[in-house]
Amino acid sequence: MSDPLIEATYIATRPDRDPEILAEQIAREQSLEIVPELIPDQIRWRYLGRVLEVSRQGEERWAFRIGYPAELASAQAGQLLHLLYGNVSFYPRIRLLDLHLPDALLDTLPGPLGGIERIRTQIGVRDRPLLMTVLKPRGSSPEHLAGIAGRFARGGGDLIKDDQNLVESEIQSFRNRINICTQELELAEEDTGKRCLYLPHVAGSGDHLRRQLEAVKEAGLAGVVMCPWVMGLETAASAAREFELMWLAHPAMAGAFTEAVDQGIASPILLGKLLRVAGADISIFPGSGGRISSAHDDDRAVCRALTEPLGQLRPTLPCLGGGKTLEAAPESRQRLGIDHAVLVGGDLLKRGEAIEAAVRETLERF
Amino acid sequence: MSDPLIEATYIATRPDRDPEILAEQIAREQSLEIVPELIPDQIRWRYLGRVLEVSRQGEERWAFRIGYPAELASAQAGQLLHLLYGNVSFYPRIRLLDLHLPDALLDTLPGPLGGIERIRTQIGVRDRPLLMTVLKPRGSSPEHLAGIAGRFARGGGDLIKDDQNLVESEIQSFRNRINICTQELELAEEDTGKRCLYLPHVAGSGDHLRRQLEAVKEAGLAGVVMCPWVMGLETAASAAREFELMWLAHPAMAGAFTEAVDQGIASPILLGKLLRVAGADISIFPGSGGRISSAHDDDRAVCRALTEPLGQLRPTLPCLGGGKTLEAAPESRQRLGIDHAVLVGGDLLKRGEAIEAAVRETLERF
Repeated sequence: MSDPLIEATYIATRPDRDPEILAEQIAREQSLEIVPELIPDQIRWRYLGRVLEVSRQGEERWAFRIGYPAELASAQAGQLLHLLYGNVSFYPRIRLLDLHLPDALLDTLPGPLGGIERIRTQIGVRDRPLLMTVLKPRGSSPEHLAGIAGRFARGGGDLIKDDQNLVESEIQSFRNRINICTQELELAEEDTGKRCLYLPHVAGSGDHLRRQLEAVKEAGLAGVVMCPWVMGLETAASAAREFELMWLAHPAMAGAFTEAVDQGIASPILLGKLLRVAGADISIFPGSGGRISSAHDDDRAVCRALTEPLGQLRPTLPCLGGGKTLEAAPESRQRLGIDHAVLVGGDLLKRGEAIEAAVRETLERF
Repeated sequence: MSDPLIEATYIATRPDRDPEILAEQIAREQSLEIVPELIPDQIRWRYLGRVLEVSRQGEERWAFRIGYPAELASAQAGQLLHLLYGNVSFYPRIRLLDLHLPDALLDTLPGPLGGIERIRTQIGVRDRPLLMTVLKPRGSSPEHLAGIAGRFARGGGDLIKDDQNLVESEIQSFRNRINICTQELELAEEDTGKRCLYLPHVAGSGDHLRRQLEAVKEAGLAGVVMCPWVMGLETAASAAREFELMWLAHPAMAGAFTEAVDQGIASPILLGKLLRVAGADISIFPGSGGRISSAHDDDRAVCRALTEPLGQLRPTLPCLGGGKTLEAAPESRQRLGIDHAVLVGGDLLKRGEAIEAAVRETLERF
């Protein structure tokens, strides 16, 4: 029996050679990267990518559906990303638009540890979208950040993430900051009876990354923020798995893939399906209508990729980011239903002492 | 005294708002990512990015030179990358074109462990460009790959890398393969008196990555191949440092940054300066004239970024890749001088038993 196939659909715009030939070249480049005459039959059969379909999509645009033997992904999200777009990233005007993963591969990828279901259970909210805020700016005292966290939680807010610019070189500073924020949130929970999840930002590599994750576990927190497109998708995924922590994927650097014209990887794949198979419990991406929004991609498609049935993988919580306002926060419910979160940063933080009331008022409109 | 500044120059094409305002917004987005009224004076002074120059570059193009306090890079190549392009990756048509790093930051970044100088010393070649080949395809037996390595070395070849598609899930298979190749190269060295460096590909994360690096050390090899744009720049850099191994940076996925029109990060920065500060000893990038070449960037500029004086950092060996032929391999000497390597894969491998003679003949023309 032949290996099951990963099916990747690329759009080629103004292809620089015959589309059929280009499709064959991509299939070879991404799988074995070698001239055809050097591929023995038994290797060709087992590992060579194959063109499943070439179809015209309009003026100077073609769709290539290419099948890659699932074994080439080596059961790792990082290697899967590499397989789908590694060398072809240098080909002109090739965009990865769609991706189908066979069950045989999905069964080897763990997916989210908790995802939407565990997050809802932990905070006890089932019937509405979730509200998230962010602790910043860098340079603030831990007490100042804890004050923001406490007011947000007392207003009934659901999730708090560290800003991805919060980075400490000294582990003791990191530990101190997250402990002060955690204590403030425990006090708020005692008062309100409702939990608010706090996700500190961890970064770097090796021992320093491990010490941060240990500190998060010691503080009894449920998860962390990581930037997979900076630290590496597989690095983030395996760190979270090893420490049994949920993780929120911040999209820093991902715009290089999603926002390029006719090039890169579409958001529903990069910030949707790939993050879900890598096990992200929450994926933040630019929703429509904020300071930052995607030039090409529809946030509904990203939400679907994160939540619709995908093997046995749990759904990932989609979170609309990119400079949302409190005023606009409840609008996405019409478009997206309830299974998403909205991140409001600066527009909430500037309320200062009135954060608590602003959160309460916003949640009533959710 | 104020913190020294990292100076980043971005090109904005068809800016979607007033260029001065856009430049200020980028400076804020990348440093503190917060509305101006929420930045206390002492944080503004220490951490806020500042616009140093806005200049018109022609029809609908502006250059923004922005200074970021060096502390924001947290003395990590990964965090530096994040600082330069994290959120701005989602801004339309902003490309990072140039980068100046202050000595105060360069002094904290280790740079290459060996670079050009140590590679030349180990292989004993001082007066010409170097020739590299690649072991592939995936699925070949270790003995077949070792045969390629041996013939290349006996012909006088300088460097052998694993193909980045060579990935083993079982550490024993990895160890077995690299040991067989290493033994073959030791036999060749006994015969020829010349060393050929072999760089196995390591991938993945956590324990599996560590076990591969341990196996490479045990085999007595000098370095490895890693894909920093897949596994994370800081992950690759710190893994190599911890094991005191040289590393070759493969550019898989990097085209998403370098090849997008008016977007992304120019090759001399991404595949040049950033890899050098991250400590890559060899950087492979698409040279002109191969199967893959860069649409925008000049390979001479990448070579300069890797080799010209940069603080106390050793020069990184530039390697032209992307499907070079044996026939064309010596041509780059005119343009680039001797301090680079040329990677020839398929065009050499297809010679089979005649690899040794082909290498010898090519090196005579170098």
